Amino acid sequence: MKNAAGREIPDEILTGGREVFKGNNYKDGSFYTKSGPTVRAHIKPRDNKLIDTIREAVKLCGIKDGMTLSFHHHFRDGDYVANMVMKEIADLGIKNITLAPSSIGDAHEPISKMIEEGIVTGLQVSGIRGKMGEAVSNGKLKTPCIIRSHGGRVRAIEQGEVHIDVAFIGAPTSDEYGNAKGTGGKSDCGGLSYAMIDAKFADKVVVITDCLAPFPNFPPSIEAVDVDYVVVVDEIGNPAKIASKAARITKDPRELMMAAECSKIMAATPYFKDGFSFQAGVGGASLAVNLFLESLMEARGIKMKWAIGGISAPMVELLEKGLVECIADAQSFDVAAVKSLAKNPNHYEISTSQYCNPMNKGAFVNKLDFVVLSALEIDTHFNVNVVTGSNGMLIGAAGGHSDAAAGAKCAIIVTPLVRGRIPIVCERVTTLITPGESIDILVTDYGTAVNPKRQDLIDILTAAGIKLTTVEELKSKAYSMVGIPDELQFADKVVAIVEARDGTIMDVVRQIKPFEF
Amino acid sequence: MKNAAGREIPDEILTGGREVFKGNNYKDGSFYTKSGPTVRAHIKPRDNKLIDTIREAVKLCGIKDGMTLSFHHHFRDGDYVANMVMKEIADLGIKNITLAPSSIGDAHEPISKMIEEGIVTGLQVSGIRGKMGEAVSNGKLKTPCIIRSHGGRVRAIEQGEVHIDVAFIGAPTSDEYGNAKGTGGKSDCGGLSYAMIDAKFADKVVVITDCLAPFPNFPPSIEAVDVDYVVVVDEIGNPAKIASKAARITKDPRELMMAAECSKIMAATPYFKDGFSFQAGVGGASLAVNLFLESLMEARGIKMKWAIGGISAPMVELLEKGLVECIADAQSFDVAAVKSLAKNPNHYEISTSQYCNPMNKGAFVNKLDFVVLSALEIDTHFNVNVVTGSNGMLIGAAGGHSDAAAGAKCAIIVTPLVRGRIPIVCERVTTLITPGESIDILVTDYGTAVNPKRQDLIDILTAAGIKLTTVEELKSKAYSMVGIPDELQFADKVVAIVEARDGTIMDVVRQIKPFEF
Repeated sequence: MKNAAGREIPDEILTGGREVFKGNNYKDGSFYTKSGPTVRAHIKPRDNKLIDTIREAVKLCGIKDGMTLSFHHHFRDGDYVANMVMKEIADLGIKNITLAPSSIGDAHEPISKMIEEGIVTGLQVSGIRGKMGEAVSNGKLKTPCIIRSHGGRVRAIEQGEVHIDVAFIGAPTSDEYGNAKGTGGKSDCGGLSYAMIDAKFADKVVVITDCLAPFPNFPPSIEAVDVDYVVVVDEIGNPAKIASKAARITKDPRELMMAAECSKIMAATPYFKDGFSFQAGVGGASLAVNLFLESLMEARGIKMKWAIGGISAPMVELLEKGLVECIADAQSFDVAAVKSLAKNPNHYEISTSQYCNPMNKGAFVNKLDFVVLSALEIDTHFNVNVVTGSNGMLIGAAGGHSDAAAGAKCAIIVTPLVRGRIPIVCERVTTLITPGESIDILVTDYGTAVNPKRQDLIDILTAAGIKLTTVEELKSKAYSMVGIPDELQFADKVVAIVEARDGTIMDVVRQIKPFEF
Repeated sequence: MKNAAGREIPDEILTGGREVFKGNNYKDGSFYTKSGPTVRAHIKPRDNKLIDTIREAVKLCGIKDGMTLSFHHHFRDGDYVANMVMKEIADLGIKNITLAPSSIGDAHEPISKMIEEGIVTGLQVSGIRGKMGEAVSNGKLKTPCIIRSHGGRVRAIEQGEVHIDVAFIGAPTSDEYGNAKGTGGKSDCGGLSYAMIDAKFADKVVVITDCLAPFPNFPPSIEAVDVDYVVVVDEIGNPAKIASKAARITKDPRELMMAAECSKIMAATPYFKDGFSFQAGVGGASLAVNLFLESLMEARGIKMKWAIGGISAPMVELLEKGLVECIADAQSFDVAAVKSLAKNPNHYEISTSQYCNPMNKGAFVNKLDFVVLSALEIDTHFNVNVVTGSNGMLIGAAGGHSDAAAGAKCAIIVTPLVRGRIPIVCERVTTLITPGESIDILVTDYGTAVNPKRQDLIDILTAAGIKLTTVEELKSKAYSMVGIPDELQFADKVVAIVEARDGTIMDVVRQIKPFEF
């Protein structure tokens, strides 16, 4: 069955009330009852919740075959917690586990083997890369991986579609009762935005820390009232690895040129006025936009009111210079952001629900003026792919891409027209994550195109002297440079299901197969 | 059927799974599934949630006959919000409403008429005083009033026994999206601890403010993600009336003497050591204990680690002098506390669940060393009454009394032996709120008695040269002073049900009737 974004969704996955994507606002105004965890009452006073080992936590939580466990990825490539827990799960002979972490990255390579061994048979994630991505793309996971945006994950948890039996929360500091936060320890990771949701909706919650703080460790990101056990270990993660390549500002002149052009376009819209709000996605050019905004704001004599999203050094600098009034941080993308969150009273931690849950009563993204995002592919319908590579392999993360794009008044994709021999602007994206209905402007190194649905922006930008082209022309240019790509060939098996923010089905990813000539 | 505290509970109220009280820790370790509200998804971005009037909010929320509404009592006697909302309810001809505010006080006299008119037919509260108390005690309310402690209220909401259809939250500041807090406005009330729970568990949430703050009003006590509508009105309350008589420090030499004695006793226990924790209830003598602790701490060279509870000026002074490291504030009891919460980074707001919910995974009260509380009556089983007067009328509030007493390692009641011609220490309390199993020490102006279950404390205090008597002797002394009181006579009708913290039935209150000779 074809969905509203033109993707063919196989009938066999449309079970259990699943619907195909019907447009961003299909479920606006709908009612639903929030799920609640099944928890254990702790009436009798006790002084602490400390237990000695992760293994003891696994046992005390009664983890058994078939359960769903969650982790957060605030340490990104520096996370130690998921592997430590999964080692105990494997050693105890537990099988058939579904993992529902906020994301999976290179740090979790050891878990890819557990997929082949049937220890992990389900995955519900925002992103999946490296060996884990290969295992899933090669059809090794027993059930299709569910890919959700950050907001979609919160929605699924709150609606009970993902029921977390046990959440393991790596926390840079915690007191003996489980009041935990991402700062004040020896390996700080900034906020704990993803885990804030897990703590409220998981049946059992285990805080794992490498820095036991005096009670009360306040104000906490994770509240003791939700925590069953606290385990102290030597090391929960390596903060130096939080800043992945994805989160570094480019030095590539081509990307800097695109960032400059993007900023110029932003400044030509009516949204660029005193008190505007902004998010920059990770990825070379989009992050670099931060740099160019500074001079444009100064020239115009305006300031940014708030910035959200994954936060990194360039935004922290704007905060310190007073060019942005406050930051609402859903993930600290580098050490500068971690430090700023810990010390700057105008740098706030927000939960992932506050950031971008589509089905709460109004997330930050809903009030966003601009978001600048990157893409692995963008097609002539402005549909964007950020999870599969040109060979169809799972190599990326949905992240907050579709959330911020849906919410923002002006969602801009910045990408080079081609990367290597791959056309980025193309006829049809390999996998659809963010529908074209959410994207307003595409900035490339060969010109800028505005989504035809935004005739208002076309008029405004043209009047401002911005030269525009069309996405069709950009695609043709890309194909003229690197040739028309052969259609990718996939096996039949659906290895991943891409959910839209509201839980409807946006697309599927099929098993890769060796190219046949 | 007689419960574990010796109170006769009529069988006719033991319906729907209700059980009689079986001891403080009866439900320790039990499992339950948390309730979730039925909410409306706000996917489509919109800039604000402002509506013009409370009446419009009532209509948009679809309030109809039979619904349950909630309010908070952070403004105590200065609250305007409940009356403003209930006027609209009455004007719209809506009937059969159950009110589930955190408490009801003198401010709510206008609502007492609505009880007689059948507009309000149910009440679920911590406390009830004045005209409202009279209406209930006289059997005017259609259904029995349910009296719960602050912790019991959270439990009942989280377990779905109280389902709030619409929460109206008076907030000193809110942005146009509903990020709200108790500070920063023209009528600050401090924290919004009670309302934090309502916002998370009510189907619909309306923030009513008299100070619209710029977005984002951060960090918020009430999160916009839970808020449907924001209404701006002229005035939400009068902060000058937050400090009721109950929250003022006594100048009565007798009460000061008892407070001094209480402090001396505290200092003689092993809990009085560096890093201890403390809560003082409202009420003349108990609040005055704050004053005497200061010199005792200085003499011993120790500091308090944390204080919780309703907070007022004496504790704020200890914070500012560095004698307590931090305050976890569940209710600001005077303007000094309100101001301190707004400016002192070591003065934290906590939700009522964090404060004292018995059935979460560990509230602050569970780690409390000392609590000093007052009583309207205390009997020879150390059972305490804080809700009915000597004539059987509802005149008080359960508050956090039973919560803090159950959690604290050393729960002390400070009360004069008699008030007027009324014996406070008596054979049997009129209404039982806090069971004797939770009370360790009784300090009166005629001597101190330790609960026999605490032989350890009897030994320690005796060894420290503290002269002890028994509760029986204290009762006899009281009776010898004012005579043995005649047994109160009640009508048959149960007008209020007192729930224990865990939802079991602690006692009932019957309709008062003119005394018959």
